[in-house]
Amino acid sequence: MTATAAVREGTPTGVIPPLLTPLTADGELDIPSLERLVARHLDAGVDGLFVLGSSGEAAFFDDAMRERVLGAVTGIVAGQVPLLIGVIDMQTSRAIQHVRTAERFSPAGIVATAPFYAITGPDEIDTHFRALAAASPAPLWAYDIPVCVHTKLSPAHLVHLGADGVLAGVKDSSGDDVSFRRLVAMDRAAGTGLALLTGHEVVVDGAYLAGAHGSVPGLANVEPAGYVRMHRAAMAEDWETVRTEQDRLAALFEIVFQPVGKVGPAAGVGAFKTALRELGVFTTNTMSTPMAALGDEDAAHIRAVLAEASLLEA
Amino acid sequence: MTATAAVREGTPTGVIPPLLTPLTADGELDIPSLERLVARHLDAGVDGLFVLGSSGEAAFFDDAMRERVLGAVTGIVAGQVPLLIGVIDMQTSRAIQHVRTAERFSPAGIVATAPFYAITGPDEIDTHFRALAAASPAPLWAYDIPVCVHTKLSPAHLVHLGADGVLAGVKDSSGDDVSFRRLVAMDRAAGTGLALLTGHEVVVDGAYLAGAHGSVPGLANVEPAGYVRMHRAAMAEDWETVRTEQDRLAALFEIVFQPVGKVGPAAGVGAFKTALRELGVFTTNTMSTPMAALGDEDAAHIRAVLAEASLLEA
Amino acid sequence: MTATAAVREGTPTGVIPPLLTPLTADGELDIPSLERLVARHLDAGVDGLFVLGSSGEAAFFDDAMRERVLGAVTGIVAGQVPLLIGVIDMQTSRAIQHVRTAERFSPAGIVATAPFYAITGPDEIDTHFRALAAASPAPLWAYDIPVCVHTKLSPAHLVHLGADGVLAGVKDSSGDDVSFRRLVAMDRAAGTGLALLTGHEVVVDGAYLAGAHGSVPGLANVEPAGYVRMHRAAMAEDWETVRTEQDRLAALFEIVFQPVGKVGPAAGVGAFKTALRELGVFTTNTMSTPMAALGDEDAAHIRAVLAEASLLEA
Amino acid sequence: MTATAAVREGTPTGVIPPLLTPLTADGELDIPSLERLVARHLDAGVDGLFVLGSSGEAAFFDDAMRERVLGAVTGIVAGQVPLLIGVIDMQTSRAIQHVRTAERFSPAGIVATAPFYAITGPDEIDTHFRALAAASPAPLWAYDIPVCVHTKLSPAHLVHLGADGVLAGVKDSSGDDVSFRRLVAMDRAAGTGLALLTGHEVVVDGAYLAGAHGSVPGLANVEPAGYVRMHRAAMAEDWETVRTEQDRLAALFEIVFQPVGKVGPAAGVGAFKTALRELGVFTTNTMSTPMAALGDEDAAHIRAVLAEASLLEA
Repeated sequence: MTATAAVREGTPTGVIPPLLTPLTADGELDIPSLERLVARHLDAGVDGLFVLGSSGEAAFFDDAMRERVLGAVTGIVAGQVPLLIGVIDMQTSRAIQHVRTAERFSPAGIVATAPFYAITGPDEIDTHFRALAAASPAPLWAYDIPVCVHTKLSPAHLVHLGADGVLAGVKDSSGDDVSFRRLVAMDRAAGTGLALLTGHEVVVDGAYLAGAHGSVPGLANVEPAGYVRMHRAAMAEDWETVRTEQDRLAALFEIVFQPVGKVGPAAGVGAFKTALRELGVFTTNTMSTPMAALGDEDAAHIRAVLAEASLLEA
Repeated sequence: MTATAAVREGTPTGVIPPLLTPLTADGELDIPSLERLVARHLDAGVDGLFVLGSSGEAAFFDDAMRERVLGAVTGIVAGQVPLLIGVIDMQTSRAIQHVRTAERFSPAGIVATAPFYAITGPDEIDTHFRALAAASPAPLWAYDIPVCVHTKLSPAHLVHLGADGVLAGVKDSSGDDVSFRRLVAMDRAAGTGLALLTGHEVVVDGAYLAGAHGSVPGLANVEPAGYVRMHRAAMAEDWETVRTEQDRLAALFEIVFQPVGKVGPAAGVGAFKTALRELGVFTTNTMSTPMAALGDEDAAHIRAVLAEASLLEA
Repeated sequence: MTATAAVREGTPTGVIPPLLTPLTADGELDIPSLERLVARHLDAGVDGLFVLGSSGEAAFFDDAMRERVLGAVTGIVAGQVPLLIGVIDMQTSRAIQHVRTAERFSPAGIVATAPFYAITGPDEIDTHFRALAAASPAPLWAYDIPVCVHTKLSPAHLVHLGADGVLAGVKDSSGDDVSFRRLVAMDRAAGTGLALLTGHEVVVDGAYLAGAHGSVPGLANVEPAGYVRMHRAAMAEDWETVRTEQDRLAALFEIVFQPVGKVGPAAGVGAFKTALRELGVFTTNTMSTPMAALGDEDAAHIRAVLAEASLLEA
Repeated sequence: MTATAAVREGTPTGVIPPLLTPLTADGELDIPSLERLVARHLDAGVDGLFVLGSSGEAAFFDDAMRERVLGAVTGIVAGQVPLLIGVIDMQTSRAIQHVRTAERFSPAGIVATAPFYAITGPDEIDTHFRALAAASPAPLWAYDIPVCVHTKLSPAHLVHLGADGVLAGVKDSSGDDVSFRRLVAMDRAAGTGLALLTGHEVVVDGAYLAGAHGSVPGLANVEPAGYVRMHRAAMAEDWETVRTEQDRLAALFEIVFQPVGKVGPAAGVGAFKTALRELGVFTTNTMSTPMAALGDEDAAHIRAVLAEASLLEA
């Protein structure tokens, strides 16, 4: 048995980092930093990029800013790798508007969460994904992220939507590895051909053993090459290398635990942005309102972790 | 001691129902039904209306639909009662866009939740409300609704924002009556003058005893007169009448528990819309996508509750 | 309509404080302090006492300590008021053992939670209460405390168990006042005759409006007279007095928010014990292992609240 | 780098199944079934047994039943493999009583959860484990099971307790694989020598990649040989075999999803017991009160999964 089940023709797999959005000090899109970030990803050999995900701060952007990001990224990437585009919004009708915008940027896939804010059940979630799929010929991906939307997508429902041609893939950021394993097994048994990617930076190795087709790790913005090496090793079934890379990346992930008194993306994305500033990729570590940038003390601790990982000189 | 602390000049209090949004069978705004609904509220003597709240399905609307609703409601209400306008959205920048739109409709107040989807802490919530207040001269209200945004606003923080002139009032839909009582007491002790309204249909009487200035009950769409009578009795300290009205309204609220296999607004708002259709106020009980309207069996159970409450003939 | 529905013959109602358990500095039961505490309750005119509840630290006691507390309390109370006895334990078989012990102390009622630790559903909860009721002729009460057992008892289930003669009453510490109001209404509609007591110190007034038969407030250990006055006023439908007493008690309840860096009973029961030490009722504020007693700084803040409430000289 | 860090001298690692407790139809300990179950484990080559864990229904037993189980198991095992003994109870004092009992059965380790029912914070949890460790010379293990105790033990705290000699190992049933990986890394960095076992049946392979020393899988009661083969393969770094075994066991784990209308151990342990009855190891599938045994329809679905896994003839 091979490591992974076959996915549908044309569906991207492998390492598809959720692209950060660098900002200038006054909160505008920072194009030079974005160019350096994309170059770093392409140089590392990533298999695609996920634009307007949670790590990309899409939830904080108005429509104009989302479109500005899409325009800039597609311009810089220029078709060198496929793009997944996020359409995160509260309920179906706004998400469909984002789909319409996304379509104009030739996405390899469109990535949608379950509805949120207003509580919905399985029937509404089903209608939601079917309505999004019907709105565009682009392949639709489900983004399973209960920490943000407070609903867990069930493996059986995902596979059912896959079998019906509604979904092409799943980005699993659920933190529920038991559920992920069942998703892989159900997908394989049903021959659905869903692309199954994990979003959890420090347990990608286990997801590969379970049959994941790739990863969407926020930390890959800081160190894409490690995730690419890990994926190639996993596809070659060289598990010793997989583990060594994962252990190193897990040590690097400690940057997100350095900020004091911060939670959510203010801590996590804030740490990624600060690391990239320290590495000379970003000009600032500015965050979207209402989040403040990390301060000097947090940055010093992040530098120490980067040095420990040999990404910076100590 | 009077029942309630004084609020700031010009801040609406009393019964301010969260206005439902009637839809035609194909999901468009149903103006004739809206006219009947508003007339029912005005005839009952409500003190204001809350437009684009959770019960108004604002979370399901795109910007054009939100603006259509505002235009229609302000046209129909024509200044007869003050309007609170909701600006529910994920994070600060989109909420500010909704503030800009709301301003054009001369709101008596603008109602915003804490940020959601992306996890935020007290610092970000503080920045969020201050940024919204700075964006408009209209008075700002905090909408405390943890069941939707998954963050509880602390009484101390709310009073602090009130003392700083950021907030004019609070719509409490937290279900945490201990917290609400502390909010009333802290506001009174600090002399902040926040208007404090409860959103919980069946325990408004206790909130009045605690010192609430009014209520924002979704059920008032079905029976505004009862909530108006309860509020007048509370202000007159006629608690026997308060209780009698509350008990009757609590019995009527059982309509939201009739739908089988539905959760959230599909059940609750669905029951309100179905009741209003049965009462001849709405033409349909259509819900926003991805929610389905309630079916005949649920409607029959709702009719039975309406008959029990003497709103319909049995 | 009278304020409350009739309860079954012999079922205690009114103010039934959950009795604290004073400890000596080395953690033994402190009899002289217990005598002073009980005398304070009896002098205030309480209608009963709830022994071995959460506030009584029963969860922290081994069986011998539980029995020592029961022996001491029944000796001191000497039948002057009825006793409810808690049988809090993980699952049915241990709870039945506690029922056997409780029976020897002539309880007016036995108070049991839903099962906890191992997850159970409605079927198991039903079997649990029926097995406990079958184990003893003493009336059984359900203790609805989801913050500890992580299951909410549904009003419909409680009324069903009441109608079947399994339950005589409910101590509601759920914090869900919507559910409590539905419980009162369902009990009244079904004529079940359940005694319905609330455990929430600062919203007892609203519970009385809703039809509660009494209260089980931990804070009544510090100020039983206020709760007794509030209950008598409620039964006389003198709501202005109810509110005045509740506002005063709510201000006093702020003692539980004074401890810094503590959660759960270490903060709440710790504040009650510290207040009673400051009032000269308890000799120490010692807590059960693994909880530490509150320190001097917390005690100073608690004294300030007591002084504000005129229970201590400033 | 080897797969796992060294543990302390004498600390058991490897496959240590949480032993089920077979019951007769009238709820008594079923000794012949227990003998067959233990023999099955020993024949498969397990490295130890965990007695009185959650899967062993310890939460449902009174003290006499717990002691009966310990007596029977130690008699049957007769020192052939080391035993870990659970001391699950609400708070410190009762858990210490269980430690005293456990000591009499020469445990290789004693396994305790965080306190539960009453809410506790990090200070109380720290005191709790230190008090338990002080109560006995037997090595103490922390049992991280937030689904039951509603507190997550932090990796940093566990390693700190390990470094202080309080803990010898951790049984991780948290479902939080990110936390587990950090625990492994922190333990390795600090040289604490904690034995780190995972309790999650279907992702043991990932835990081995992360550096787990073994597993405590409830499903191993049904198929110990597979878990033993997986562990040996992991120690030999034969990851292809690890994955193949894990995939097969994950398919077998589907038995726990067959029961209809059941949750918690009534479903999970109920499925294990039913499978063992179908395999001829247990005489009945009786569950502890208040849980009902699975019925014929559930058993038929479980048989189908067993047949699919070639454990039964179809």
